Amino acid sequence: MTPEEFRKHGHAAIEWVAGYMEQVEGLPVLAQVEPGQVRAGLPDHPPENGEPFDALLADLDRVIVPGLTHWQSPNFFGFFPANASGPAILGELLSAGLGVQGMLWATSPAATELETLMLDWLVGLLDLPDQFRSNGVIQDSASSATLCALLAARHRLRRDLAVYTSTQAHSSMEKAARIAGVDGVHAIPVDDTFAMRPDALADTMAAHGPGFVCATAGTTSSTAFDPVAAIADVCRRYDSWLHVDAAYAGAAAVCPELRFVNEGVDRADSYCFNPHKWLLVNFDCDCFYVADRSALLGALSILPEYLRNAATESGAVIDYRDWQIPLGRRFRALKLWATLRWYGAEGLRQHIRKGVDLARDLAGWVEADPDFEIAAPVRLGLVCLRHRGGDDVNQRILDTVNGSGRAFITHTRLDDRLTLRVAIGAPTTEQRHVEALWNLIRSAAAPAAPAAR
Amino acid sequence: MTPEEFRKHGHAAIEWVAGYMEQVEGLPVLAQVEPGQVRAGLPDHPPENGEPFDALLADLDRVIVPGLTHWQSPNFFGFFPANASGPAILGELLSAGLGVQGMLWATSPAATELETLMLDWLVGLLDLPDQFRSNGVIQDSASSATLCALLAARHRLRRDLAVYTSTQAHSSMEKAARIAGVDGVHAIPVDDTFAMRPDALADTMAAHGPGFVCATAGTTSSTAFDPVAAIADVCRRYDSWLHVDAAYAGAAAVCPELRFVNEGVDRADSYCFNPHKWLLVNFDCDCFYVADRSALLGALSILPEYLRNAATESGAVIDYRDWQIPLGRRFRALKLWATLRWYGAEGLRQHIRKGVDLARDLAGWVEADPDFEIAAPVRLGLVCLRHRGGDDVNQRILDTVNGSGRAFITHTRLDDRLTLRVAIGAPTTEQRHVEALWNLIRSAAAPAAPAAR
Repeated sequence: MTPEEFRKHGHAAIEWVAGYMEQVEGLPVLAQVEPGQVRAGLPDHPPENGEPFDALLADLDRVIVPGLTHWQSPNFFGFFPANASGPAILGELLSAGLGVQGMLWATSPAATELETLMLDWLVGLLDLPDQFRSNGVIQDSASSATLCALLAARHRLRRDLAVYTSTQAHSSMEKAARIAGVDGVHAIPVDDTFAMRPDALADTMAAHGPGFVCATAGTTSSTAFDPVAAIADVCRRYDSWLHVDAAYAGAAAVCPELRFVNEGVDRADSYCFNPHKWLLVNFDCDCFYVADRSALLGALSILPEYLRNAATESGAVIDYRDWQIPLGRRFRALKLWATLRWYGAEGLRQHIRKGVDLARDLAGWVEADPDFEIAAPVRLGLVCLRHRGGDDVNQRILDTVNGSGRAFITHTRLDDRLTLRVAIGAPTTEQRHVEALWNLIRSAAAPAAPAAR
Repeated sequence: MTPEEFRKHGHAAIEWVAGYMEQVEGLPVLAQVEPGQVRAGLPDHPPENGEPFDALLADLDRVIVPGLTHWQSPNFFGFFPANASGPAILGELLSAGLGVQGMLWATSPAATELETLMLDWLVGLLDLPDQFRSNGVIQDSASSATLCALLAARHRLRRDLAVYTSTQAHSSMEKAARIAGVDGVHAIPVDDTFAMRPDALADTMAAHGPGFVCATAGTTSSTAFDPVAAIADVCRRYDSWLHVDAAYAGAAAVCPELRFVNEGVDRADSYCFNPHKWLLVNFDCDCFYVADRSALLGALSILPEYLRNAATESGAVIDYRDWQIPLGRRFRALKLWATLRWYGAEGLRQHIRKGVDLARDLAGWVEADPDFEIAAPVRLGLVCLRHRGGDDVNQRILDTVNGSGRAFITHTRLDDRLTLRVAIGAPTTEQRHVEALWNLIRSAAAPAAPAAR
């Protein structure tokens, strides 16, 4: 494709994305397709000769879009938000257009230096502790960050270290341990806010010895906050590594009034949060910090001849390949840079505050309805709620809401009861969308007498 | 950023990328900056209020571009090619614009089904064995694919399996073993073409028992081809897992006359190659196949409550989160789809053939010059060469070529001698670029009497 052809088709692709942004609110949120349906709409083999780019855009509309669940819809309330935004999307475009590799400083110095700077910008913006300055790296996901933290801890401590995390921790902790070949993940009990109990952690560590502790600031299930400072005390007593997973909640610290999400993080050996969840940077962009980089480098650095270069040997530069699982890496700092500059600190705060305010609105409506209850403390943008009628009613609500195509929510189990999760935080979600969802939930709870629509 | 603002700035970003494509040939290939120089050109903190998008594009030109090594330059001959192309870049843009998550089939069915279909298109296009059909997944890199293969093998075989690979294998094999906590990577000697010796493999396996064998089809150092069929015989004898890493060379199989790169792969338990190297799909896009998916799923599948859904429980769908290290995943199949359709099979063949032909041209010129020698068989697009004057002369050539900014090459050591690597395969590289490089190399070898420029 020549630059001139790229101009032509690139402008068409930009128009297509802008049109998608304008139309996504009206599309069924959950894909309404059966297994195999998308594939059946496409040929079994690639074309022998090239096809016009317009044909691809036509098939996007015809086959792909009906098979998507629309994570960018203002009516998407499932899982956690997966914010995209215009500047981030364009940052991704620029990164793809440059097509450079950032595995070593020498293979594209600006890719490395902009990344370190962006991670330092975030240290200031989120008021993270100073030891994380110049010790940050972009990972694809919190799963990979957790794995890297575990490998660093193993390097520093010992081969057969134990792993401790709460019963509410993300499944990526168990997966990381399995990948690393570490046996014995100890699931620590939680209190009635679903936060890890430091006394129970201490008891378990007394029995199983030093290791790797993963505390969660904002669990996936219910945004519970483990008491990080108290956990750090236990870690110090047992000479253990403390990793804090703030994948979702970390972004909230752009707002000074929400800095409770950082409680105790100054005591952590490593920390991560995902701008690709709630900070308007499209996936993938997890920010991972270590207090001391030497254990991470010790765990992951290997230098074959064909990667040797003067800059690396000088010790004056960062080579990010030693901070991650893969060797190659995209120039992901560009989309972070584009997003932070376009919105500015104040724009990001407004975005976070809107999600928190809408969640409080919804929580108020739930509390005012005698048929429903709040199932876990509402700390940020996630509301866990359930109908008091039991699992069957809640399952019917879930299926009805999602089957309608008008909104999408997911579920969890809390206190062994089916619980509806409403995660608010898409940049285009307004109060009217949350109101419509609440009406949908209430009418689904009473199918015999559906509310007027 | 509203859709209307996205249109405006998106068109500007497309123009910027098209302009970069037009200008990249004239830029110094290797970044001419000192450590810290890029960062020093940028502010220490993010702006408090948002900035116009034009300011970002201006800073790209002012600060970032001078700090890049231009992997998309027609004069870039380092490492291996990292092909980008117009349709792939636009596929990445569309994927970022849609912003969907493909971790489960249910979270966006089209993302999963298009990915499986694209991997099946490639099975046909490359004439890969049938057992790989519907058993393929996109990974970020061959490093991650190797790690996943090792984890699958460990799941099928036993906890303390041994690892076998040649002395010429990619460093990602050692890194994967270290991540997985597997001790004992046995480096098998190579023959005079730098290919693994199956007899030496058999001897080592007799001493250390069954395990994981990584054969390389096209090594990073010199594109040596391990004899995969003979290695498969040894693996069968010792009940071991055979992984074939064809990261660079695999793409060549689009051409029927180059299918020697697939020799023996029908006997492999797993296989990977990187369209992001030589098949015009921008990083990241590694295609990873398994002959039997059950071991991979057994190694990596964990299902927490908040990810449960009817489609998963039906068993009728693929959930790609169980095929990789991270949980989240981008819709990377779009860029593969865009590239395969725009170029068609024939367009891809022409691209590969051009690189192979140019490498043969260069190899012929080297052989005709009594001061130089070819250091390893030229099988595809990589030419390993050296001046007969010894390491000091070759180091001077390397430094002079790269310092000139007019071309970029990298190095390796073969037979314990410094060797220059010229990797040809950028889509815009023509014979005139290779000629200019060869003249540059020759004049750098004789600094006392530089050739007229």
